[in-house]
Amino acid sequence: MSSSDIFIGETIGTAILILLGGGVCAAVTLKASKARNAGWLAIAFGWGFAVLTAVYTSAPLSGAHLNPAVTLALAIKDGDWSNVPVYWAGQLLGAMIGAALVWVVYYGQFQSHLTDREIVGGPGAQDTKALEAQETQAGPVLGIFSTGPEIRNAVMNLATEIIGTIVLVLAVLTQGLNDKGNGLGNLGALITALVVVSIGLSLGGPTGYAINPARDLGPRIVHALLPLPNKGGSDWGYAWIPVVGPLVGGAIAAGIYNVAFA
Amino acid sequence: MSSSDIFIGETIGTAILILLGGGVCAAVTLKASKARNAGWLAIAFGWGFAVLTAVYTSAPLSGAHLNPAVTLALAIKDGDWSNVPVYWAGQLLGAMIGAALVWVVYYGQFQSHLTDREIVGGPGAQDTKALEAQETQAGPVLGIFSTGPEIRNAVMNLATEIIGTIVLVLAVLTQGLNDKGNGLGNLGALITALVVVSIGLSLGGPTGYAINPARDLGPRIVHALLPLPNKGGSDWGYAWIPVVGPLVGGAIAAGIYNVAFA
Amino acid sequence: MSSSDIFIGETIGTAILILLGGGVCAAVTLKASKARNAGWLAIAFGWGFAVLTAVYTSAPLSGAHLNPAVTLALAIKDGDWSNVPVYWAGQLLGAMIGAALVWVVYYGQFQSHLTDREIVGGPGAQDTKALEAQETQAGPVLGIFSTGPEIRNAVMNLATEIIGTIVLVLAVLTQGLNDKGNGLGNLGALITALVVVSIGLSLGGPTGYAINPARDLGPRIVHALLPLPNKGGSDWGYAWIPVVGPLVGGAIAAGIYNVAFA
Amino acid sequence: MSSSDIFIGETIGTAILILLGGGVCAAVTLKASKARNAGWLAIAFGWGFAVLTAVYTSAPLSGAHLNPAVTLALAIKDGDWSNVPVYWAGQLLGAMIGAALVWVVYYGQFQSHLTDREIVGGPGAQDTKALEAQETQAGPVLGIFSTGPEIRNAVMNLATEIIGTIVLVLAVLTQGLNDKGNGLGNLGALITALVVVSIGLSLGGPTGYAINPARDLGPRIVHALLPLPNKGGSDWGYAWIPVVGPLVGGAIAAGIYNVAFA
Repeated sequence: MSSSDIFIGETIGTAILILLGGGVCAAVTLKASKARNAGWLAIAFGWGFAVLTAVYTSAPLSGAHLNPAVTLALAIKDGDWSNVPVYWAGQLLGAMIGAALVWVVYYGQFQSHLTDREIVGGPGAQDTKALEAQETQAGPVLGIFSTGPEIRNAVMNLATEIIGTIVLVLAVLTQGLNDKGNGLGNLGALITALVVVSIGLSLGGPTGYAINPARDLGPRIVHALLPLPNKGGSDWGYAWIPVVGPLVGGAIAAGIYNVAFA
Repeated sequence: MSSSDIFIGETIGTAILILLGGGVCAAVTLKASKARNAGWLAIAFGWGFAVLTAVYTSAPLSGAHLNPAVTLALAIKDGDWSNVPVYWAGQLLGAMIGAALVWVVYYGQFQSHLTDREIVGGPGAQDTKALEAQETQAGPVLGIFSTGPEIRNAVMNLATEIIGTIVLVLAVLTQGLNDKGNGLGNLGALITALVVVSIGLSLGGPTGYAINPARDLGPRIVHALLPLPNKGGSDWGYAWIPVVGPLVGGAIAAGIYNVAFA
Repeated sequence: MSSSDIFIGETIGTAILILLGGGVCAAVTLKASKARNAGWLAIAFGWGFAVLTAVYTSAPLSGAHLNPAVTLALAIKDGDWSNVPVYWAGQLLGAMIGAALVWVVYYGQFQSHLTDREIVGGPGAQDTKALEAQETQAGPVLGIFSTGPEIRNAVMNLATEIIGTIVLVLAVLTQGLNDKGNGLGNLGALITALVVVSIGLSLGGPTGYAINPARDLGPRIVHALLPLPNKGGSDWGYAWIPVVGPLVGGAIAAGIYNVAFA
Repeated sequence: MSSSDIFIGETIGTAILILLGGGVCAAVTLKASKARNAGWLAIAFGWGFAVLTAVYTSAPLSGAHLNPAVTLALAIKDGDWSNVPVYWAGQLLGAMIGAALVWVVYYGQFQSHLTDREIVGGPGAQDTKALEAQETQAGPVLGIFSTGPEIRNAVMNLATEIIGTIVLVLAVLTQGLNDKGNGLGNLGALITALVVVSIGLSLGGPTGYAINPARDLGPRIVHALLPLPNKGGSDWGYAWIPVVGPLVGGAIAAGIYNVAFA
């Protein structure tokens, strides 16, 4: 694979991943969406099949890492770091493009969701209670872009992200041992997708399972840049956890693999 | 593949697609249905497995396009336009047959759903409020046949349909690169189906994801023709968007494919 | 395949099919079940994965028809009727065994579900309203065993069962054209299962989708025989529809196959 | 496979199984979890995809039994008992590690879930009614670790666990007959996973479907050892049923296999 194929594949694949993954969060969260309140099962399947679609379409070009923690783990496993920067750059760029596309697809929903606040708490409004209620209502907007913890505690949140990522990366690394010629783009894409559904259902409760630095950081940057009215802060104080946690988890998984499976 | 195989395959396949896809909308919407109110997850899986069933049964005859946007994209990719009219004709005819079959399967439910209006707002009724409430209740009938937007805005709705179709068609086009001899009717049908589940969960919120001109236009014609009491209008003002949007999306996806993957 | 392998395979497979299929109906319906009120999506996936499990375990012995309509369609397609009686006998016996096993697995739940009626409307009770309410409550018990229509109309109910079975059998018959050496027990089992999920979600609303004479008749006989207190009637007036409808549908599907695909 | 590969593979695999399986129970049960109240369908898919992930990651090392009942059945089928102790030891150790990891991932949720009791019924509290209500609230904590019956009856509960395990083990044993070279780690893992979803949806209502002695006993030991405040008893009176039932079921399934399929 050439560097340009890797860069283009990771950019396209991660853009599709975040378009579909962020999309299901928008679909379930925003008013005037047909999927509103479809629940956690929709979130978990939505992100899983986002992985399926993204892996399937980018595997022929770049091998479909789509996750800096996966790229790190494969570099540790193979001892080859030459393409890491190209993978990471494509992943971050793709994640930002995907988040911007979510905004395009749900443009009317974002506007309609937020302007309620402006109507009720518009210029000169003094009703503190109504304003606070709207603040709560506006809260989910960041959740469409990036993850956040139910209970904020750096050690606990890091531990959750590390363990979730170990599971994901172990499944990705053992694929090479399980594959019987079906190829990554076929059964491998499906199984990886269902592993992600599993992690979402089982380990997503505390932090919303970033398990991928690009998945969280790219959309958070886009949230900070986009002209969304009343979007609230981008919670940069939490932003390092879904970057560091998955990278640590990926490295641990590569170590487990090299000791137990290699 | 002969022209007659293509035509028969696309007619059968698209009829099954719309029978099952329209069927899940009827199942979830209509009174006196065991699946009533089963929710958006049922809609998304229902349409996805409708694609699975339709692709599986028609792939041996026609290669299972079942979507004019897919046919257009493959023609652009391969530079071969000779069979496009046959594919499109079979798709539109099949979609109309499928929509009529939904009516046959749910005949009693359609009658029972609608006659409530006649009972409350029957001849001579003057209760405007009750009539308006019934109008709202009758509204979903068109939604069993064709798509409609939550927020009506031609530019926004077109953008949503274009982006959803790009994702679908990219996944269909890369199948040729991923396939390791499993054949379209097997793993390819399953993966395409789950991509459609993904698009439904993630990008379906604003417009109901037509992403297929035949899927929307064929049933809309049948809605206009069928003798459903109190069916309401067929919303022809919106009808061009789920035709033009998917065709534009398919052409863009073919362009991306020819530049990045070919 | 020997006759005894066919008989044993169909008996085991159909017993597993009805154990798991009837089981999910019991799980969702009965009080004191952890899955109570899990909804129609659980029913549809439950029956679909029941098919997966049953096909997978019986395919090596009998080829996993598990449905008299499938056996009929294959006999028409292949012009070979010699094994039809053995298949049908195994299927009916297996369905009865499966229904009895549902009763064993949910024995406590059946007793607890029904004895409420005895407590409230016990010997000498005269509270007609309470008795009627209990009758309604007891109603679902037959629904754990056999199907029943939402709106009772022989022509409509037959049409729904015929169309649903055509879809199922067409997918089964085209499997031979799609299979690329994966074998029935593998990918074929999964795809057939998801086709059944699709039919359940999309076409199950009006009649509860028997689409299989043994699936309905066998459990209905067991419902009539079992000593369930207050079980209500077995609705024999409806019993011919889920037998005749699927057989007609299977024959039509075989005809379509022979004309269009062979 | 060497004994150390078997031991490491079963330990890693069963740890992942219980981390993800116990995880979904925690996700759905505990307060301050994003998946709270996601329902039985989430439980059933969560455990099924836990099996998928665990089988996929451990199959290259140990063949992925992950269940003492499966190991017993394979020993009966093949007449080779030499590795049974190594498999069983790895499975029990892995299950305990997995349960401890659930506690780590959901540490904050466990603390927050339980301290409500301390707040309301803290030192010196005498409000018996409030205490009892809290006891009920605390009840689900054991349910995150181990199974328990809806209606407590040793014969009935044993029968349910035996029948559920027969279905599981028959599907595992027939895999060797169905496999067309795809390998356990690929399609076999997926099908086994969906069989477990099926058993959960259909047969899980009465007892919560242990169908695996290690899955129940390991986490029960960890529940007894962990310093969870107000965790309640570990219900040792029930503990033998999800050990004996699955072992009996596995042995019966092996007998059926040897008679009918071998």
